[in-house]
Amino acid sequence: MVSAVAAANETAALGALDRLLAATHDEMDKVNALILKRAESHVEMVPQLARYLIEAGGKRLRPMLTVAAAMVFGEATGAQTNYAAAVEFMHNATLLHDDVVDESDLRRGRPAARIIWGNQASVLVGDYLLGQAFLMMVETGELDALGVLAKAATVIAEGEVFQLSKAGDLAATPADYNQVIHAKTATLFQAAAEVGAMAGGADDAGRTALRDYGLELGLAFQLVDDVLDYRGESGAMGKNTGDDLREGKMTLPVILTLADANPAEREIITASLGKVDATDAALSQIVAIMNRHNALGRTVEEAHEHVRRARAALAPLPESEMKTILSDIAEFYVSRAY
Amino acid sequence: MVSAVAAANETAALGALDRLLAATHDEMDKVNALILKRAESHVEMVPQLARYLIEAGGKRLRPMLTVAAAMVFGEATGAQTNYAAAVEFMHNATLLHDDVVDESDLRRGRPAARIIWGNQASVLVGDYLLGQAFLMMVETGELDALGVLAKAATVIAEGEVFQLSKAGDLAATPADYNQVIHAKTATLFQAAAEVGAMAGGADDAGRTALRDYGLELGLAFQLVDDVLDYRGESGAMGKNTGDDLREGKMTLPVILTLADANPAEREIITASLGKVDATDAALSQIVAIMNRHNALGRTVEEAHEHVRRARAALAPLPESEMKTILSDIAEFYVSRAY
Repeated sequence: MVSAVAAANETAALGALDRLLAATHDEMDKVNALILKRAESHVEMVPQLARYLIEAGGKRLRPMLTVAAAMVFGEATGAQTNYAAAVEFMHNATLLHDDVVDESDLRRGRPAARIIWGNQASVLVGDYLLGQAFLMMVETGELDALGVLAKAATVIAEGEVFQLSKAGDLAATPADYNQVIHAKTATLFQAAAEVGAMAGGADDAGRTALRDYGLELGLAFQLVDDVLDYRGESGAMGKNTGDDLREGKMTLPVILTLADANPAEREIITASLGKVDATDAALSQIVAIMNRHNALGRTVEEAHEHVRRARAALAPLPESEMKTILSDIAEFYVSRAY
Repeated sequence: MVSAVAAANETAALGALDRLLAATHDEMDKVNALILKRAESHVEMVPQLARYLIEAGGKRLRPMLTVAAAMVFGEATGAQTNYAAAVEFMHNATLLHDDVVDESDLRRGRPAARIIWGNQASVLVGDYLLGQAFLMMVETGELDALGVLAKAATVIAEGEVFQLSKAGDLAATPADYNQVIHAKTATLFQAAAEVGAMAGGADDAGRTALRDYGLELGLAFQLVDDVLDYRGESGAMGKNTGDDLREGKMTLPVILTLADANPAEREIITASLGKVDATDAALSQIVAIMNRHNALGRTVEEAHEHVRRARAALAPLPESEMKTILSDIAEFYVSRAY
């Protein structure tokens, strides 16, 4: 049963992305121009590969978060353009390396860069983008913000290694999963929002508010992503449904299901977990088991909890149009799960 | 015929490494302690892999260069410890990614990390080390030095991509080769020496002197390395002789040889270039062809030219023990080629 408050939230959520896009449009034009400029190189393969990925229609959610966070405080210093582009470069570097690590074939609905240019170039261009990200941060002259992103880079890499070490581990717990998504996803959302707030001239309380908001938004985002990996369609998602299962990723839906499964169900899941050749029929059967234990539903509920916390983090800030948009956008990203 | 000056240089060179090790010993103890500390992580696989590589007996030449450069100016601010550790982390990150890119089996005389922990972990731990490098730089609060290393990170990655794009390209020129080694090797030597000078309180002229010295030293170092890949023994080198040939790397020895080779010789080289299964017999035959055209000798001569320039770069600085050591050490590294 959907409460009246929840229904109102959902209606607000539906328009939130449009409002965010409109409100950040001019600032994002600057960010996008900088991104294209800084993907240039006299070594031909670098911009070819970088632009292929960058122009593939990613939603630019993370840099938009940086820009929006700066605008909440209304005194954007101009540094947000570099910060936002650096955040997007860090994100794209991670995607390039992830696709190599996960041996993914698809990214944003097209063949992954590594399929076209190879794993080697993907690793190296990822390194290039990471270097450029730091260079853009250096150019702003703000050591504090640079420290936030440098720290994020280490935490993200650690989280990816931790995830790798837990692949196919049937003993993985919800706490392990939280540690993984906190590090590999939420940390960059957190950093993106925090450096945005810094560029906006936020005081310590404002910086903390945006930092907490970004973290919770990132957690909700990843939870929904992990639901969609079992519920989505590859066309719409730009990645293959069931990838997580085939890669042996211990996401919350599979952890919750294994905890409640009877021996026969467990057998069906473990027979496909981490098997690249698991069939779509097996996947359907596993999704049915997940639904029997409401594992996808409970994962969405967990995402909702983080959305509530994200909104609560913003509550102490003075009312503004951007604050409302950020509050609504958190709801919007969870609405993707339906 | 060896001139009297060259003979004297060579004698000085022989003791240079011992003198450098002794002169930097106390400072390097601090650097090594920091390196071990910063390779820690609560994610077990990170320190396991990082320490495996870091403790494998690398010569720590680059961080030693940073420390030595600071000592030339005698007013080391303390920042050299972080700078040196950051330089070593950047280097190790590059090695991890290179071994994945080159599909290398050996590194520093032992199985490459990727053989033990896999390509995936090697990519991710490389990212972690790169993040830690920037974090250590941030902690010094010196934006200028950070900029030098961030710029170096992008140039190194670009150079690696350029090298990749030239693999097996029979039309590669000595200019292409210079561009590759300038970017992928000499840039980090240059940055290592420059940030060292900065930590030592060098003025602009001093900073430029060390920067130029590092660049020329790095070029000489790579030229010798590329000779040793055809002349060395895998036991001594810690990598397999002939790797460059099998990977299709267009290094100066092969570029010079192809330029002068007759059709029959050319045929022999191209039959093995870029072939992972090229036999040792084919390699011996190719080395014989190289020697017929004095390609290895001419490459060593090119290295000598860079050593001369490295020494010339230091000339304007006031005399000091460390200046003499740095001047001699350049000679020492070329002496490896014999």
